[in-house]
Order: sequence, then C-alpha cells, then structure tokens
Amino acid sequence: MTLPTVFTELLGVRHPIALAPMGGSAGGELAAAVCRGGGLGLLGGAHGDPEWLAREVPVVAGTGLPWGIGFLTWGIDLAAVELALSYGPRAVMLSFGDPSPYAGRVREAGALLFLQVTDLEEAEQAAALGADVIVAQGTESGGHGAARGRSTLPFVPAVVDLVAPVPVLAAGGIADGRGVAAALVLGAAGALVGTRFQATTEALVDPSITEAIVEGRGQDTERSTVLDIARGSAWPSKYPARTLGHPYLDRWRGREAELAADSRALEEYRDDVARGAIPPLPVWAGEAVDLIADLPSAEQLVTSMAAQAEDALNRAGRR
Amino acid sequence: MTLPTVFTELLGVRHPIALAPMGGSAGGELAAAVCRGGGLGLLGGAHGDPEWLAREVPVVAGTGLPWGIGFLTWGIDLAAVELALSYGPRAVMLSFGDPSPYAGRVREAGALLFLQVTDLEEAEQAAALGADVIVAQGTESGGHGAARGRSTLPFVPAVVDLVAPVPVLAAGGIADGRGVAAALVLGAAGALVGTRFQATTEALVDPSITEAIVEGRGQDTERSTVLDIARGSAWPSKYPARTLGHPYLDRWRGREAELAADSRALEEYRDDVARGAIPPLPVWAGEAVDLIADLPSAEQLVTSMAAQAEDALNRAGRR
Repeated sequence: MTLPTVFTELLGVRHPIALAPMGGSAGGELAAAVCRGGGLGLLGGAHGDPEWLAREVPVVAGTGLPWGIGFLTWGIDLAAVELALSYGPRAVMLSFGDPSPYAGRVREAGALLFLQVTDLEEAEQAAALGADVIVAQGTESGGHGAARGRSTLPFVPAVVDLVAPVPVLAAGGIADGRGVAAALVLGAAGALVGTRFQATTEALVDPSITEAIVEGRGQDTERSTVLDIARGSAWPSKYPARTLGHPYLDRWRGREAELAADSRALEEYRDDVARGAIPPLPVWAGEAVDLIADLPSAEQLVTSMAAQAEDALNRAGRR
Repeated sequence: MTLPTVFTELLGVRHPIALAPMGGSAGGELAAAVCRGGGLGLLGGAHGDPEWLAREVPVVAGTGLPWGIGFLTWGIDLAAVELALSYGPRAVMLSFGDPSPYAGRVREAGALLFLQVTDLEEAEQAAALGADVIVAQGTESGGHGAARGRSTLPFVPAVVDLVAPVPVLAAGGIADGRGVAAALVLGAAGALVGTRFQATTEALVDPSITEAIVEGRGQDTERSTVLDIARGSAWPSKYPARTLGHPYLDRWRGREAELAADSRALEEYRDDVARGAIPPLPVWAGEAVDLIADLPSAEQLVTSMAAQAEDALNRAGRR
C-alpha cells in the first residue's frame, strides 16, 4: 500500500504528504511524528528564531529521517537561512515574498528548494529560480495567503502544466485522504497539509485551538487582515489570513484602515487578550475544518490519510 | 474505458459528466452534443421563457438520450416548471433560491430532482427535500454563485459526508479530465462543467465570448455584482458573478451602491454597449479558464475528458 510519486522518490519518503511549516505550531514533535508516519515533516521556522531552532530541530533531526524547514520569505535574512542550513535539512521551503536572495544559497548547500506560490507569475519565477518542488497554495488554506487567492482545484493543474517537469505539491483545502488523492489526479506529486495537523496530539498549540478546529465549520472561516492589525503583527497587509470567526472580525470587517489608526481599539484588543475575553492568538484554520472531527496522533494520521487516498483512487469510477 | 458511478447508473449515461445549465448559452445544440458524447446535457432554462424552450428543447430531446433542464430558482414560477415537465426531461435542476415550492412537483412528475447548493445548510435542505442529485458548487465556478462561496476541493467531501447516500456532483473549477477525476476521488459521483463548454463549437455564444475564454486567465476572473448592477440585471445582489476583467469592474469595484444610484453611469453603460465600446454581456468565466486553450466540439470534449479522467486515475500514485 504505497503511492509512489516523483515527490516520494525525490525526498525518500513513503507517502506523498508533507506537513505545512506552520509558524510556531509545526514544531519538532509534530514534524518528527509526520516523518515517522512516512511523510515529510517541515518545521514552521517563521522568522528563524535561533532559540526556537535550537530547541525544535534536534527533535525532528533525531528521527534520522528526511525533514525540512519552512520560512516566511518576507521576514528572514540570509543569516537565518544559513543557520537553518547548518542543521542539514533535506528541504528548505520559502513562502510569501521574493525568494531570489535565498534560492541560490539553499541549492548550493545541497538542500532541496521548495517554493510556495499563489499565482502563475510566482510559479514561473519559482521554476526560473530552480525550485526542486513548487507548492501551489489555494485560497481555502488556513492562515496567511495571497490577497486575491486562487482555489486549489483549478490552480494546481494550471501550475503543473506551467512548470513541468518540476514536481508540484497541492496546498489548501486538504484534510483527508480524498484530498490527497485529488492532489495526485490533478497532476501534483503530493499534498501539503496544514490545518489537519493542528488537531493532532503533537501540534504545538493550546488545547483551545485544537478544540476550535475540531468543532469549527469551513463556512465560519474568513480571510482578513483585521486580526493581524489588531494584534500588531508584522505580517504585510497584502497577506490576509484565514481564521475561524472572532469578535474583532465582526466589529472591524471592512474598516481595516480605521482600526490601524485607532490606538484605543488596539489597546482594547491587548486588554481583551490580557483578561481572557478573547484568545491570545487567532485560530488560523482552512475551509477543510469541516473534515476534521478527531484528535489523532500525527504519525497515525499520515498512515491513515495515505491509505484513504489509495482507497479513494481504487474506488473512483469503479461502480 | 468507462467510469461507472451512482450518477451514470441513475441517469443512464456513459460518463460522469454533466453540462452546467448556463442560462442562454447551454442551448439545444450544446446539450445535444453533450448527450451524444455520453454526458448529461442540461439546458440553461434560466427563467423558463416558453419561446426559448419551444426552440431549444426539441433539439436535445431529438437525440433520444436522457437530458435535463436547469432553472434559476429565484426567477421562476410553478407554471415554468410545469411547462418544462411537459417536455419530459429526465432531470430538472434548480439553482439559487428556495427550491421547496417546486421540489415536490418535479418528483411527482417522475423527473429526477437536481438541487445546486453553495453551503452546508442548503445541502441539508436539499437532502430533506428529497433531491435525487445534489450539485455542490464552489466559488471558483464561472457566472453566479453565493456571496461567501466555498472552494470546491474542501466543500465537495463535506457535502458528500453530510448528504450520503444522495449522489453529489462537483461543480466549479473543473475544465478537464483531471478535474473530473478529482471530483470522483473526493467522493462525488460526477462533475458538472460550465465554462469549458462555452468554448465549444455548439455553445450558444458570440465568437468574442469564446475567444475571451480561450485567451483568459483564471487570475483575471473576479466575483462581483458591479456588472449586474450596470446592466440592470434582475439577479439578486446576494449572488455575485465571476467574470473576466471589464472596464466597469475597475471603475466601480467597491462602490456598488453608488453605481446603483447613479442613473447617469447606468445610461453610460447602455451607451457604451450600444456603440460597441464594451461587450453586450459580461464574459462569465470560472477560474479554470487557465485550462481552456482550444475550441473542440462538445461531443468530442466529453469523450476526451472522460478518457483523461480515467488516465489520471490510473496514473496517480503509480510512480
């Protein structure tokens, strides 16, 4: 029971499933569990905080299996990339921003270069920069993405056609084996999965986040910059984030500029967090939360998603 | 080379592919071609204009193959449904609005009831009304849809799980056999395809529309109510439409209420149409226009999409 693809062969992993490098929550334990399950664990390196790396990298590197690390391209510098490379990851993934200052260095170091793209221009640039794997992210994904995003189902085959023969991972809206199977028939070599892995026993998240994801509905998720503005995040405003519902979304939707200029409202947000009236962080979640109803270990989850994908492929159009 | 599903068995068609009943452009010739190709041709009945039906129905009914007709639920009355039923369609599809006044009548007449849904509440209602087939429409689809739409890839399996064992068709973002295969592995019993069929030799559209679709890019499509307001359409504002770019979109985006109240701007739109400065109709198109690059006959297209779907299923995870 395996689904070999160009991706599994290139990375030397059993299943065409990668953990999305979700900043903070994709820590060493979660990445290690995904690796042990037969997928590719990608640490959520975010801005490349040296202390975080020193703590989390050894956990996944200790598996002896291929692993990787992802960064926010707009929020790093060459030193962060160099530091990550010094740990010997099999893959470095760059998302959101211009990867050209870092692409060459990653490849020189012998790591595989993963570039995440949200439109066809970025896909073309990624191929030109020599990406080993291109991650095509749809707008249904949880967390941050392009302001004018594309939906995964039509976007992935367009990217596949454009960048062939570079292997593509589909990202956004995939939370079970049916989604993994869909990625493969669309021409992708695998799936990059985020939100689903937040609801696993190894995710580096508060239990309240897990609970919200298990109970949340796709139609209650929404892309917005309101919560980044409210919490004073460094995320550029051109990357709204998909989250579950939140009182500040209802209060400030469509009045983002006003919120940014309202120092009293921003203080009120901090106060609301401090007194526990609102959660300390937004619940980043994709539309596929509809498909998430349990809290397995990530290691088991990879195995069961792969089995379900194979089953979906075997059953489709057989009755 | 066939992909039998609950849908193909229920309808008695060869391939799990249905023509979206696009108002006006899915005429008798296009529906007949889809039927001859082995799919299900659904006429775009829109508001149920008796003259249009009298002209277009005989063309598809003359094939002797199963066919159907779709209506805009918000824009019809019982008389329109009765008239359609008098032609003996195998299926009647209702989209956008409350189908409860018509559902019982369609089933009593022995036609299969197709209900299109855009969120999980509508899906639940459709199942409760006894829908024989539920069409789950994603926001990447061309033309009209829900204001806060869901993306097809995560939406379809959520609907499948909710309404089982009612068969589901996936709609939105599907323009080739890879998309049809994705629909099947997601648990759908087939795919409903719109925009792709606009670029066929049998579509009831102006050649300029076909050309725009062949040349258009998914990232140039946009959901908006601006063009419906500008052209004085009866479409309720809660259903924006996805179209290719248009000068009036650039001019009025975000100022919809202002446009609606500006009689001079509305007159200007009519004048611009009259003197040929802008096309007589918006170019309704889904994100999957990226995958449309030729102008085949719809009959051939159904066959080739089905073959490509089977090929995609056979190749996925086989290396």
